[in-house]
Amino acid sequence: MIRRPETLEKLLEIFRSFPAVGPKMSERIAFYLLRSGEDKIKEVLKTIEEAYYKVRPCSICGYWDDISPCRICQDSDRDQSLLCVVESPQDLVAMSRVKNFRGLYHVLGGALSPLEGVGPKDLRIDLLLKRLEEGHFREVLLALNPDIEGETTVQYLVQQIQFISKKLNEKSSNGNRSEIKVTRLAQGLPAGGELEYMDETTLLRAFDGRKSLIAEDSPQLTSQK
Amino acid sequence: MIRRPETLEKLLEIFRSFPAVGPKMSERIAFYLLRSGEDKIKEVLKTIEEAYYKVRPCSICGYWDDISPCRICQDSDRDQSLLCVVESPQDLVAMSRVKNFRGLYHVLGGALSPLEGVGPKDLRIDLLLKRLEEGHFREVLLALNPDIEGETTVQYLVQQIQFISKKLNEKSSNGNRSEIKVTRLAQGLPAGGELEYMDETTLLRAFDGRKSLIAEDSPQLTSQK
Repeated sequence: MIRRPETLEKLLEIFRSFPAVGPKMSERIAFYLLRSGEDKIKEVLKTIEEAYYKVRPCSICGYWDDISPCRICQDSDRDQSLLCVVESPQDLVAMSRVKNFRGLYHVLGGALSPLEGVGPKDLRIDLLLKRLEEGHFREVLLALNPDIEGETTVQYLVQQIQFISKKLNEKSSNGNRSEIKVTRLAQGLPAGGELEYMDETTLLRAFDGRKSLIAEDSPQLTSQK
Repeated sequence: MIRRPETLEKLLEIFRSFPAVGPKMSERIAFYLLRSGEDKIKEVLKTIEEAYYKVRPCSICGYWDDISPCRICQDSDRDQSLLCVVESPQDLVAMSRVKNFRGLYHVLGGALSPLEGVGPKDLRIDLLLKRLEEGHFREVLLALNPDIEGETTVQYLVQQIQFISKKLNEKSSNGNRSEIKVTRLAQGLPAGGELEYMDETTLLRAFDGRKSLIAEDSPQLTSQK
């Protein structure tokens, strides 16, 4: 093997510390930058520095913006009674592609994982519950990943939200306030997926969630009964 | 879609400009950095800057080092008569894992590609030919990628090296100097590969390069003829 200069080793190490960047990719990025013009390097350095100091997590939802509360939280066109809870900012970006959803968001910053030592205090759960208690949310959509950590978090959050929901109901003197609806994303076959290659869990969930193709409350059908 | 702050958009764009980094990965890296502590960011910035200004291409072989000539070119333990020509610094790193090879290197900086407008002038070919003319190389190993660009470059280099080799021979008054041997890496089945999944070209090359398992000049065999 070739002994590399320490500066280069450090550069490769820095890129390897980035998520999903392995040794090969780290080399490609490093050599790409070394080959770049001085202007490019100056731009890279300036952009990282500026973004780091300007873009901070929103004090309400936890998404990243250069203003706080962020653009999403300030957007009065959004349905203020619908809250979508996601694990990461990337998941928020994914959900934002769903055109039918025009509510607000809450970024947890991860999912509960007893194995990795991630407890409720490590996530933005307290802030979520406080938001629910102070806000006027009709529905909370738990858009967490369909894995063990996501499931654990969903179960924990459902309990906590039900507790708050009841407390809110008791407090409301006129009794007008209804409980907060807690929903989750449907589980089943992904679009374009091939049945043949689906794992058992996906198929089981798709089966459990199967839908009737003929509406059961359709007038024509009931009249025939 | 969510309108992101310009600073964040610029950060995502910078990472997308890196090789093999797509939109998803760019997001992961950006959010990872935004979430990092200030120490980490300072280290990232300092490491990129230092490496960029300290690590430069070696004036002889074109590999990256903080001294020029580089550590490899200065290594007197290496076989000074054996030169391995590679396309990129990454390929040099790969070749350096071959324990049996202890020669010098020459990084071309790419391969000839008429389609992408990469001609001989865009690569470090002139420097290679000058090195061969001035050095005392016995063998040049063309370790280029087994693709169309690599093949084109091999053909071009073989012509150029033969021309220089002859010129050197004519110049040498005592006639001691022999021509420069030009070799390439063997082509065939990759280690651990499954025959079933090999493409036609690989199989064809493996067939053309097949080797006799019983040495043809083995004394026992010849005596039996």
